[in-house]
Amino acid sequence: MPMQTLQVALAERSYPIHIGEGLLDVAALFLPYLAGGRVAVITDSNVAPLYMARVKNLLEAADVTVIEVVVPAGEGSKSWRILDEVLDQLLAAHCDRDTLILALGGGVIGDLAGFAAAIYQRGVSFLQVPTTLLAQVDSSVGGKTAINHTRGKNMIGAFYQPRAVIIDVEVLRSLPERELRAGLAEVIKHGLILDPEFTVWLEQNIENLVARDPRALIHAIKRSCELKAQVVGDDEREGGVRAILNFGHTFGHAIETGMGYGNWLHGEAVAAGMMMAAELSARAGMLAFEDVRRVQGLIERAGLPAAGPALSAERYFELMATDKKAAQGRPRFVLLKAIGHACLRSDLDESWIRASIASRSAKTG
Amino acid sequence: MPMQTLQVALAERSYPIHIGEGLLDVAALFLPYLAGGRVAVITDSNVAPLYMARVKNLLEAADVTVIEVVVPAGEGSKSWRILDEVLDQLLAAHCDRDTLILALGGGVIGDLAGFAAAIYQRGVSFLQVPTTLLAQVDSSVGGKTAINHTRGKNMIGAFYQPRAVIIDVEVLRSLPERELRAGLAEVIKHGLILDPEFTVWLEQNIENLVARDPRALIHAIKRSCELKAQVVGDDEREGGVRAILNFGHTFGHAIETGMGYGNWLHGEAVAAGMMMAAELSARAGMLAFEDVRRVQGLIERAGLPAAGPALSAERYFELMATDKKAAQGRPRFVLLKAIGHACLRSDLDESWIRASIASRSAKTG
Repeated sequence: MPMQTLQVALAERSYPIHIGEGLLDVAALFLPYLAGGRVAVITDSNVAPLYMARVKNLLEAADVTVIEVVVPAGEGSKSWRILDEVLDQLLAAHCDRDTLILALGGGVIGDLAGFAAAIYQRGVSFLQVPTTLLAQVDSSVGGKTAINHTRGKNMIGAFYQPRAVIIDVEVLRSLPERELRAGLAEVIKHGLILDPEFTVWLEQNIENLVARDPRALIHAIKRSCELKAQVVGDDEREGGVRAILNFGHTFGHAIETGMGYGNWLHGEAVAAGMMMAAELSARAGMLAFEDVRRVQGLIERAGLPAAGPALSAERYFELMATDKKAAQGRPRFVLLKAIGHACLRSDLDESWIRASIASRSAKTG
Repeated sequence: MPMQTLQVALAERSYPIHIGEGLLDVAALFLPYLAGGRVAVITDSNVAPLYMARVKNLLEAADVTVIEVVVPAGEGSKSWRILDEVLDQLLAAHCDRDTLILALGGGVIGDLAGFAAAIYQRGVSFLQVPTTLLAQVDSSVGGKTAINHTRGKNMIGAFYQPRAVIIDVEVLRSLPERELRAGLAEVIKHGLILDPEFTVWLEQNIENLVARDPRALIHAIKRSCELKAQVVGDDEREGGVRAILNFGHTFGHAIETGMGYGNWLHGEAVAAGMMMAAELSARAGMLAFEDVRRVQGLIERAGLPAAGPALSAERYFELMATDKKAAQGRPRFVLLKAIGHACLRSDLDESWIRASIASRSAKTG
């Protein structure tokens, strides 16, 4: 069984990310965090029937009391009410400060359980066991946890680092095709903004990733996490350079909001958003148009949309004005100087932005 | 105007505590934290009529938008529901990540507003402006923030440091006598556990403190904060040595819970608890009985109870067993080796504990 380990180094402490096949059965990876004798496994109603029993058996074999906390699947669980219910279950089960919280699931579970860990008795240890490709490459690094508020997504939360992240690529076999492809959008993003060689590797291996080849997945996840860790290590609390991780996200968030959350998956919206941002980079004279075609080729071969929905440029501007990353109301864009090199720009000609949106949107009937 | 400044040095960052008379009118102390242009002042219904207008005028003169958030006075505001309302008001007022939260009030406000700052948009800057002696000497250092849960006090919270603490001893003029005396219990505690010379100073100045002499208050608050900062700096997240700050608190919490929260003020319960702990230290052969009498003299001259209520030793044991600081269900006590020197013990003869409780409790009728 091949396993790769990567150390995420942060100011306060560092933690390992283990990536491999079948890691959900490797007790040795979990043992260092079980001294408290009590583990609360937080998962959702989709993941529980697939993996709860397996994780529970593994932990109980190590003589640990397991508390099962299952919340409804879906973004709706990132709410004040569900968080209260989770905390209430932890207290009812007499979880003390030495309890370990294990987040078993996708991004919603990572965000919810990570935030619960951050505030339960002023912070308890937690492990991330992400079960979607998106969570594996995106939430494993950065320590962002949050819930939503009726007035905005991710408005309440904390920066809180896990003790370790355990990524078993085998669980991706149960992931719906569309979600796998959506996860690849973030992998591609990490290559495009930070690593020309990894982008070439992706161009050579994208079909293997879509086919869920374990070795290809392990490499892609590891390199993605490494690249993100470099950026986050330089900017843990999101002051500056970390913003380049938002490549494709300014347009992407507009698509998600404009179409209603959940109609476009996050990765699909980011893919179309990256095409718009690449187009804009070329129109701003920074990127060669042949590199825009390389971006498009990769996105299309991953089975992701290379164009946004039929929304007007006006609607994009409306939606982007409320984006919390806007600097003084002016949208700031992450652009490409070259494949593998991103930069920030907030001084762009509005006509370029309009033209980039128009040329990369589905045509209105 | 005499002003003292003390720097609290912590791993991640350090912050100043300014202590003086009339500081609520010194704009220069607030200016360094106002760059975001927006300040949410969180206070309660007792403090708002006394000081909100003054703070608001000061801030608005610096061209800052002030959002007023007023919660009901009392421990009941350290709740999930009130926290939700506070966060909702911040969002409704379009407070962004650069907003400063200013906690204006006693311990409840510091805990609530500090926790709101810790989790609002994953953490915004906050200033502590404590208006009770207890909050000035206890909450200024340590970064503990929390709300209560129906299943326990301070169960949900975060370690989160303020950018600065601004202590104006003038506001203590409006503090009820009983609360002033209760605050002195923590001042005395800091002397007894850490500083023989400061204890002597307290013995010489206790009447000046009760009379609210500004210079005496400034010195006592500064020395208390310094002593606490030393301990917290060695143990920010409460693994070991920080436990000595719980001197008097194991018995004290039992008194608070046993009598119903609010019937005994925290400082009153701690005072009686310190007498029991001093007595226990002597019975365990660690402290001279004449030093127990010194502790008693100081507590009595501060107008604090030197004996607990008429509760049986059995009731104390019941109440202490659920104390979250119990190690494996066995109560751990902070004792005195000498005036100004504390240590931890969990191996004490039960008969000594019973005798100490009995000899320092009001006699049952």
